[in-house]
Amino acid sequence: MSSANSKEQMHIVDVQAHNELITAAFIARGFNEEEGRAAAEIAAVATTHGNRTHNALKALHLDELLGSAIGNCTPGANIIKKEHRFAASEVWDGNKKLGQLVAKEAFNRAIELADKYGIGMVSVDNAWHYLWGSGYAIDAANRGYIAYTNCTSTLAEVVPFGGKFPTLGTNPHTWAFPTTNELGYPICIDWATSTVAMGRVQQLKREGGTLPPESAVDADGNPTTDPAKAVSLLPFGRHKGYGLSLVNEIVAAYIGGSIPTIRGTQSSIPSEKTTSSFFFQVIHPEAMSGNAFAAGRDQKSNVKAVIDDILGHGNETCLLPGQLEAQAAERTKQAGGLLFSTAELEELNKIAATLDRPALTSKPFES
Amino acid sequence: MSSANSKEQMHIVDVQAHNELITAAFIARGFNEEEGRAAAEIAAVATTHGNRTHNALKALHLDELLGSAIGNCTPGANIIKKEHRFAASEVWDGNKKLGQLVAKEAFNRAIELADKYGIGMVSVDNAWHYLWGSGYAIDAANRGYIAYTNCTSTLAEVVPFGGKFPTLGTNPHTWAFPTTNELGYPICIDWATSTVAMGRVQQLKREGGTLPPESAVDADGNPTTDPAKAVSLLPFGRHKGYGLSLVNEIVAAYIGGSIPTIRGTQSSIPSEKTTSSFFFQVIHPEAMSGNAFAAGRDQKSNVKAVIDDILGHGNETCLLPGQLEAQAAERTKQAGGLLFSTAELEELNKIAATLDRPALTSKPFES
Repeated sequence: MSSANSKEQMHIVDVQAHNELITAAFIARGFNEEEGRAAAEIAAVATTHGNRTHNALKALHLDELLGSAIGNCTPGANIIKKEHRFAASEVWDGNKKLGQLVAKEAFNRAIELADKYGIGMVSVDNAWHYLWGSGYAIDAANRGYIAYTNCTSTLAEVVPFGGKFPTLGTNPHTWAFPTTNELGYPICIDWATSTVAMGRVQQLKREGGTLPPESAVDADGNPTTDPAKAVSLLPFGRHKGYGLSLVNEIVAAYIGGSIPTIRGTQSSIPSEKTTSSFFFQVIHPEAMSGNAFAAGRDQKSNVKAVIDDILGHGNETCLLPGQLEAQAAERTKQAGGLLFSTAELEELNKIAATLDRPALTSKPFES
Repeated sequence: MSSANSKEQMHIVDVQAHNELITAAFIARGFNEEEGRAAAEIAAVATTHGNRTHNALKALHLDELLGSAIGNCTPGANIIKKEHRFAASEVWDGNKKLGQLVAKEAFNRAIELADKYGIGMVSVDNAWHYLWGSGYAIDAANRGYIAYTNCTSTLAEVVPFGGKFPTLGTNPHTWAFPTTNELGYPICIDWATSTVAMGRVQQLKREGGTLPPESAVDADGNPTTDPAKAVSLLPFGRHKGYGLSLVNEIVAAYIGGSIPTIRGTQSSIPSEKTTSSFFFQVIHPEAMSGNAFAAGRDQKSNVKAVIDDILGHGNETCLLPGQLEAQAAERTKQAGGLLFSTAELEELNKIAATLDRPALTSKPFES
């Protein structure tokens, strides 16, 4: 993720105008109004939090390249909830429905299960990209819950540790904690299990930079720091990131995901599936409380005391995961609208022109 | 973890003789028979799987340095199960009981909860070191369940990303999957969130080696690769491992853990707690099955097909997490006893001498 906090000129766009445009763009691609609105809203949430890699442009590109255009996402599809005997768990057939609506509903259901059972999980088979896990997890944390999600990424772009060929997704994990009252924002840990994203490789190739060591391999499967030679990614942290990426693949395999190397493609093997899988889990904080916190603290002030200790002792300049996103959200609030670069605004207005809609109005952001 | 598969001469020790010695050593430290046996058995499981950092010697050293000797572990203590309204979750006051028995019982209870609710969790406040998470998770996976545990490490030895002072534990995560029928062993992902362990730093200091980059800092908080200058560790994978380590600290804070920098010490602040926290979670695989696997596969053969795809395409030499441990267990089985180095055997026999017991008999292992 690159931050909006750069020297680049940014433009303020009204969030409602942005959402209307993106909703219209999804409707034009065959989605219904509810789907279009959900896609626009989660994209706006990502942009609000300074995330420039998972914005509305990415959501539309994904659908054009790998989604409804080639049959991996079905506009207007309905989720089918499967029956089983386990009370705190649900399994849904996502039925290739737009992931944004599925993720939102799945976290809502996992929250209901956590309210009753302390912990709840929703597993989703036949899933299509939910764009940005943080968006949903931050929302659940703001509502007071401990939220976790992982998913298998659309494409297999990552080489297993010690291997040569990409057979793993960039497979992100997202954890969020309800620390909003104590810190002003939820702690949210969210990253891919590759060292860098493929978008970063392409950016460095265009701009002539060098990749970090152990982040990519060339066509022969040998490590390279030359973005022009890089064809696949490597997991972060060697065998440790590899293990974390495997977690998503194995969880997906238990849910119903098929072989990773054909995921997100138009498979030539008709009996195989090309869909991703989602896993959602919510914990009610009271369900893990021993109610015996030191020095007379309650649960929330205990979490605050632990964080203060971690960031004390000379560590005061350390960031917490979610802090940069919270700062970006504050900037967005002060600006009174979503912040886009000149290039991003031009892309959005190309979409507006295609739809015979007026260009988005904007004003320059003075940071 | 260093593997037993080296050129070093190893010795075969009868597992029952080992367990009797270690049980006696724990009893001599004030523990009861059940506790001694549990401590001996999980140490034997670690040694069986080729783990040479978390063996019986480590278990005894931990108790001598940081455990019952200074009041962080209480021999003969009883777990107190807390009441709350959440059916799939339990919270226990570990009451500083020996962690090996607590972890074993917690996974058993989480399995019962998962049988009923699909997912179950047990959170433990006032916990004392459970030695090796894999031991319990592999057992749960061999019984057919998806197992996860994390804990806060006894000491704060790890510096937050961007910081100077150690305020985080090495905080391990362990995931195990029930792949025994398909692969011959459970996939088990288990590692600390520091790049290296403090034991590795000390070993390289003795032997004159160099630390990996970004693994440790000196007394001023500056990164160093010189083991003689290293005083604290760094998280693996920069902000990503830092986030994973924070997960354990925050989960512990919600359970009841106190401020990290006094954990495992004799605190000078009587109102604060010095104990660790454990988190256990079990999922019944059927509770996440969409029952719609590609190409007519069932859930287990689907997991096998996914693994085969990941390790195909030129990746055939990649290892799966848990594979080296399974190979070591096979070697142990062939040897007909636990494998110890000469130095380890000497240490064990020093303990036997202290207890006025005969030295362990052994025979050389021809690998």
